[in-house]
Amino acid sequence: MITLLTDFGLADPYAGIMKGVILSVNPSAVIVDLTHDIPPQDIAVAAYVIDSAFRYFPAGTIHVVVVDPGVGGERGIIAASAAGQLFLAPDNGALTLILKSCPVDGVFLVENSRYFRHPVSRAFHGRDIFAPVAGHLSAGLAPDQLGPRITTGQWVTLDMPIPHVSTDREIAGEVVRVDRFGNLITNIDQPLIHATFGDTDPRALKIAVGGFVVIGLSGVYRDAPSGALVALVGSTGLIEIAVNRGSAADVCKASTGSRIKIFTGDIL
Amino acid sequence: MITLLTDFGLADPYAGIMKGVILSVNPSAVIVDLTHDIPPQDIAVAAYVIDSAFRYFPAGTIHVVVVDPGVGGERGIIAASAAGQLFLAPDNGALTLILKSCPVDGVFLVENSRYFRHPVSRAFHGRDIFAPVAGHLSAGLAPDQLGPRITTGQWVTLDMPIPHVSTDREIAGEVVRVDRFGNLITNIDQPLIHATFGDTDPRALKIAVGGFVVIGLSGVYRDAPSGALVALVGSTGLIEIAVNRGSAADVCKASTGSRIKIFTGDIL
Amino acid sequence: MITLLTDFGLADPYAGIMKGVILSVNPSAVIVDLTHDIPPQDIAVAAYVIDSAFRYFPAGTIHVVVVDPGVGGERGIIAASAAGQLFLAPDNGALTLILKSCPVDGVFLVENSRYFRHPVSRAFHGRDIFAPVAGHLSAGLAPDQLGPRITTGQWVTLDMPIPHVSTDREIAGEVVRVDRFGNLITNIDQPLIHATFGDTDPRALKIAVGGFVVIGLSGVYRDAPSGALVALVGSTGLIEIAVNRGSAADVCKASTGSRIKIFTGDIL
Repeated sequence: MITLLTDFGLADPYAGIMKGVILSVNPSAVIVDLTHDIPPQDIAVAAYVIDSAFRYFPAGTIHVVVVDPGVGGERGIIAASAAGQLFLAPDNGALTLILKSCPVDGVFLVENSRYFRHPVSRAFHGRDIFAPVAGHLSAGLAPDQLGPRITTGQWVTLDMPIPHVSTDREIAGEVVRVDRFGNLITNIDQPLIHATFGDTDPRALKIAVGGFVVIGLSGVYRDAPSGALVALVGSTGLIEIAVNRGSAADVCKASTGSRIKIFTGDIL
Repeated sequence: MITLLTDFGLADPYAGIMKGVILSVNPSAVIVDLTHDIPPQDIAVAAYVIDSAFRYFPAGTIHVVVVDPGVGGERGIIAASAAGQLFLAPDNGALTLILKSCPVDGVFLVENSRYFRHPVSRAFHGRDIFAPVAGHLSAGLAPDQLGPRITTGQWVTLDMPIPHVSTDREIAGEVVRVDRFGNLITNIDQPLIHATFGDTDPRALKIAVGGFVVIGLSGVYRDAPSGALVALVGSTGLIEIAVNRGSAADVCKASTGSRIKIFTGDIL
Repeated sequence: MITLLTDFGLADPYAGIMKGVILSVNPSAVIVDLTHDIPPQDIAVAAYVIDSAFRYFPAGTIHVVVVDPGVGGERGIIAASAAGQLFLAPDNGALTLILKSCPVDGVFLVENSRYFRHPVSRAFHGRDIFAPVAGHLSAGLAPDQLGPRITTGQWVTLDMPIPHVSTDREIAGEVVRVDRFGNLITNIDQPLIHATFGDTDPRALKIAVGGFVVIGLSGVYRDAPSGALVALVGSTGLIEIAVNRGSAADVCKASTGSRIKIFTGDIL
């Protein structure tokens, strides 16, 4: 199985062309679109999305990430075997979260042009390198056939915002993604909440965003009246700020990068 | 075969994640997207769309509808066997039109957590309940294994606008959906036209919308000059108002909920 | 394998319905979306997109193009066997570029209603003719079973803008498509550059668009500093104007139809 995650959009035929090339190499490949609507060239969003999605696919799935502002330049391409799955991406940090948090079996440079489509254009490696290599991997090619193994420190790592915990038990994080419903998805996860606040009743936590303070972590959107702000542990374990039947992004005038604080003390 | 109908959009990976879970349960499942662009939490539009689409799929297809403002709350989930197909949806009325108009073989509550993905989040039942249950159904699970059978009156029915026929043979209906081309799709269907006006020449009917009156039901868009309003029987049997090479929604300043009248008398 | 190229958008279930009909005819058909976001009824864009995409699919692929402002009128439907692949489209010029530039094995009118879905609506031939015919073709039906063979001059050809080369070696072309990244894709291809300028160093060519002049054809976006205009040979062999990490359409205030000149002389 192969998943595709790109910033190509769906108005142009680029994603479809990649599928044509994959199926030319391996006619029985099963291909699933994760999304093609990553904001153009936004590697950090790609890193969050692939990290939030890959674990729901069967072992051995090949995840192809093509958010690639450096296409045609000097950047390499890597194939990473991690968490029982394979990841194919430009060496630009798109796999940062996966390579940091998952057991990594091996990372290889993708250099063996025997598995590329020729001639290789300089503008569309999705079609000429990523797609045919994914096709060959899905047909059983071992990733160590693609090129030399590299080790930690040799691949590019993105400087992703990580939450900061102050000595007086206040977590400072930020919004890393806004979804279609206007939910604000933060970089603060449940384990960090537990490590910071221990057995404090979640209903006693205060979550501040954009001038608003939400009292208590709820279990679900429905716990708040219609239109009210609610903070909850989202489906992937990250803290989210939502509005029941509304948009938290609109209500809080918040967006990617907006600061979030979680604390137990008085509201200043 | 499994179809997906959600309000998740395509910018987030939620629909792709559902496919990952389905294929983890049944690797040979064939999955077709109906649309993921139902307006957020708009159950009525979901009800119209699934009703307009399901009949074009092979017998035994499993249709999964996840437009679910009540996720994580008290609402149940139902599996309905009707018209030779299976439907899986929140018990919120999304299947209203199907359960009203099709032969129903059985409706079951989806409660048997043996077929769920664990732990079940409170925020994303699409991934944790709908997807794995659909996967099991596509692999042959009988719907009566999901939970107890329920009967008419026990499932939620949406109060959908139904057209009203006055004693002087005037049909009052409304626009229930506007498609990408700006066509106004109404809740008035051809059988109701026939029941109301009998053998009246369709060219003598008058269709009023937003201050405009169209004279005559046409067979096809092309029957009107470019830019002119036309009323016709659409591809699913519903009366539509269209503009040849233009947008009826723009021309009539009409949208979902706009009133439609069909009559034979004088224009007031 | 079947590809779909339409102007249906993804908010309505029309593309999904076509897949339901195809899979009802041939349950093992593999279906790939090229795009459903062709601007409504824009046959010329459909002609460019299918021409830029088809060659990346396996031999024998069936490409279905439904951009069909004349649906329900007098226009015919054609099935063309060309370049080792099959094309199914309204006879409205959508296949102009393919039938002009590829080796054509045969073009047939699609008239044999035995392979249609009945009753055939006048509004949705995608569902009632294109989808079932594609399903039958994917199951092995020979295209000459669909209707009579026609020859050059009998199918509709679109009057597509072709670049003009003046006697003083200046190519005058135009923008034929703007992609999601704001790249301006022109109708001038690399072979025409070579035929016109011979062995002239590509870095000496001047490319004029919207009051800007780019000096030199680059190999890749990265050859320009961030924000600067660059002209390059795109992935399909056409000259493109791009802005590294920006939108050429915005910078040049250019869009489909904007004029492009390529020359070697002085800038006037």
